[in-house]
Order: sequence, then C-alpha cells, then structure tokens
Amino acid sequence: MQIQVAVAKIGKYASSQSGDTLEMTERPNGGFSVVLADGQRSGRAAKTISNLVTSKAIALISEGVRDGAVARATHDYLYAVRGGKVSATLNIASVDMVTKTLVLSRNSHCPTVIQFADGTQRLLDDPAPPIGVHRAVKPQIAELPIQIGMAAVVYTDGIQGAGGHGGDAFDAPALIAALYDRYCDAPSIAMPLADDLLAAAIEADAGRPQDDASVLVITVSPHEVADGVRRLVATFPIPPLLRP
Amino acid sequence: MQIQVAVAKIGKYASSQSGDTLEMTERPNGGFSVVLADGQRSGRAAKTISNLVTSKAIALISEGVRDGAVARATHDYLYAVRGGKVSATLNIASVDMVTKTLVLSRNSHCPTVIQFADGTQRLLDDPAPPIGVHRAVKPQIAELPIQIGMAAVVYTDGIQGAGGHGGDAFDAPALIAALYDRYCDAPSIAMPLADDLLAAAIEADAGRPQDDASVLVITVSPHEVADGVRRLVATFPIPPLLRP
Repeated sequence: MQIQVAVAKIGKYASSQSGDTLEMTERPNGGFSVVLADGQRSGRAAKTISNLVTSKAIALISEGVRDGAVARATHDYLYAVRGGKVSATLNIASVDMVTKTLVLSRNSHCPTVIQFADGTQRLLDDPAPPIGVHRAVKPQIAELPIQIGMAAVVYTDGIQGAGGHGGDAFDAPALIAALYDRYCDAPSIAMPLADDLLAAAIEADAGRPQDDASVLVITVSPHEVADGVRRLVATFPIPPLLRP
Repeated sequence: MQIQVAVAKIGKYASSQSGDTLEMTERPNGGFSVVLADGQRSGRAAKTISNLVTSKAIALISEGVRDGAVARATHDYLYAVRGGKVSATLNIASVDMVTKTLVLSRNSHCPTVIQFADGTQRLLDDPAPPIGVHRAVKPQIAELPIQIGMAAVVYTDGIQGAGGHGGDAFDAPALIAALYDRYCDAPSIAMPLADDLLAAAIEADAGRPQDDASVLVITVSPHEVADGVRRLVATFPIPPLLRP
C-alpha cells in the first residue's frame, strides 16, 4: 500500500512565472500536507501573494496546527497585511496518519474531485470564498477515511476555465472520471492522471494556457513499494531567458 | 534544459519512522531550496528534532533570507530551545535563479559530492560541525555556477556509515562517480542515481539499514521539457502497522 502524490503545473502563456504556488510538508505527527494557492492576477504580483499564502500555511502546519485553523489564520494574515485588497485561492490537502484520513480544505471556486474504487465520484463544490478580501472567511473541509483506490484531484482556475473565459466549457470532473477509469489499476496512477488533465486543458486553450494552471493528485494505491523506500522526483524546465 | 531533483529515503531497520527530514520550498526570488536534516539518535526523538530544524529553515528561506544566514539562525534556534544538548546535521541545497548558481550549505560530517560534465568530481568535505551543540556554529558554503551536466549529491549518515559502524567501509563518492558515468546521458538521471546509491547502501547493511538513510540528488540536464510543464511525483509506502 502506498500514497502517490503528483503535481503538474504550467504558467499562463507568455508570462514569466506562474502565479500558482504549491508546497508540500511533513506533518509533525505523521503524514504530509500539500498547500496550493493561486494569487489574484498573474505574473510577479500573483506569485508574491501565493508565496506569502503558502509559506504562512506551511509554517503553521509544521507547528502542528490543524488544517481548518491554518486556513482561517492564513486568511486573517493575508487580510491584515494586504488590507483586504488582495485575494487568493487556498487548498490544503493532508494525509493525516494519526486519524488515517484525507483532509481536504478548500477556499476556491474550483471544486475538488474525489474518485473511489467503486467508480463513484464525489464533488466537493460547496461555495468556498477565496481568502484575503472578506471578513472572517472559513474553509470548506471534508475529511474522508483513507481507502484503497481513492483519488483526490485539486486544481486551479487555469484548468477550470480552460477553453473559455471563466465559463465551464472544460468539464474537468468528467475528464477525471474517464482518466481514473483508464489508470486505476496501473502501478503509477497519480502522475499520468495529473499529466493528462493538464494536457487536455492546455489543448482546450489551443496550446497557449490562458491562465496559470496547476493540478494536484493524491491517490491511495494497493501496490506495494517492494524496498520500502520513500521517493520524490521533481523536474523544473528552465525557460531560455533564465538560462545561465 | 531542466533541473531534476530526486530524493530516496528509508528509515533504520525496525524503526517506526526515519529521523531524517527533507523539505523543499520555492525561493521567493526564483528557484528552489531543499533542506535535509538528520536529528541525533533515531526514531521519534530524532524526527521531532529534524522536523523542528527543517521547518525553521524553510520558514526563513521563504522569507527571502540567504542560505548562510538561514543555517546560522537555525543553529542558534536549536541551541536556544534545546539548551545546546541536541545536535542535528543540516544541509541546504539551493538552485538560485537570480545568481544562476547552485548554493550548497553543509553542517554535517558527510561530504557533498559534485560531478561535472567533464567527468571530474569535487568533494565538499571541509570540517562542518553539526548544529545545536557548540556555540556560534557556521556552515560550510559552496556556490557553483549552474552548468549543464553537473550533479550534486547530498546524503546522511546512513549512507556514509553503511556496511560498518561509523567507519568508511562504504565509498559513496566512488560509487557516485560510477553511477554518474552510467546515467549522465540519460533523460532521467537524478532518480536512478539516488535509487542506486541508496540500494547499494542498504545492500552493504545486508538489507537492514543500520541508520536512517537519505539521498538527495540535484542535476542540470540538457534535455528539454517539450511541454514546459513542471512536475513533481512522490511515493510514500505505508507500513502495515500504519494502515487503516
């Protein structure tokens, strides 16, 4: 049995950097958390905001603070330091090995999609305002027992709005269900699912992403890791302008 | 051109958790940093210390603090909160996209190994005391221009001491040179290098790691990422005792 985490991210076309930030950290009592923030607008300004948000959230998580309090505190912090003038979406996805649950916290108009081994899908799409602009914002939180075969998919606006302008031309949940069916028995499921969802969104935007787009997938796979080794691999393309 | 980061980690045999902690974060001005700490002893006590150390270092890095100051501040913090009674090794490896350098900060008796495209190896092995127990400890820092083909390998005690008790029976730098030769032209180099180094260390310990062992590899590959997508994939084996 293993947990797989995969992330695929791309910046808006012709933008110097993505305004989405994703950070992963270990939980002090066991397990790990992934924090994904999408800062208002794109480019440098958005990146500064999403960095501010994720680093505050990560610091609180590493102190053992529970996710609901982390989301509230991160909102309060952004509201305080930016005077309520700047918004960001915030998702926290935690694998908590104490409670043996997957905890999904959302402050985003994008739903979180859960697939289960029996083929059913659950959409976490209750209204959940972004953080930073309204007073006393709360996250929408779902806590689900860890079960073999489950897959949670979190994504940002660039996926939600692909192929249109803020519309719902791109049906991410339906595509996720199809991709889950395709990969659910494979030894590696999280990365191909994230890759294919992002690739489909980029294609819907005719190869030029209209917004920063990020996909996070967490799956619980029955496959054993024979050697018991934890692994992490990341690839960062270096755009021509930034090369030494 | 791309940067590849790979991590392979295993806990001491029959120990409930690894006392090594590894965290990765984006640098606010571009690039990313990886922090690896090995807490004194093993199991729960070591994990608490290494978590404390990495989370302090990550928080400082995310505020834009330079690596040398991060290592000093993290030492001072551990020294203050644990009264100089607990030690940890601390490595910070940063890809800094502002200076276009790889910055390697060490407070560890384990060397950092750098391979270059021309086949040469540089060993960063100046004496660098662990943090937490002596006063005013400083890190050993090397700053190297990012060059295609370079590979930096950072590891902890479980690799250094594999196959013996604190001795140097296991020649990690020689093995790294051989593995670099084998993989340097492959599209994927960081993960196989990390995997093979850890596997060799486990084999030297007859399949039962005598200490927590972690390997971090950062490589600069000439291969292009055709779709420009950033990717991250992590696998966490769940030991039988922790399963739901």
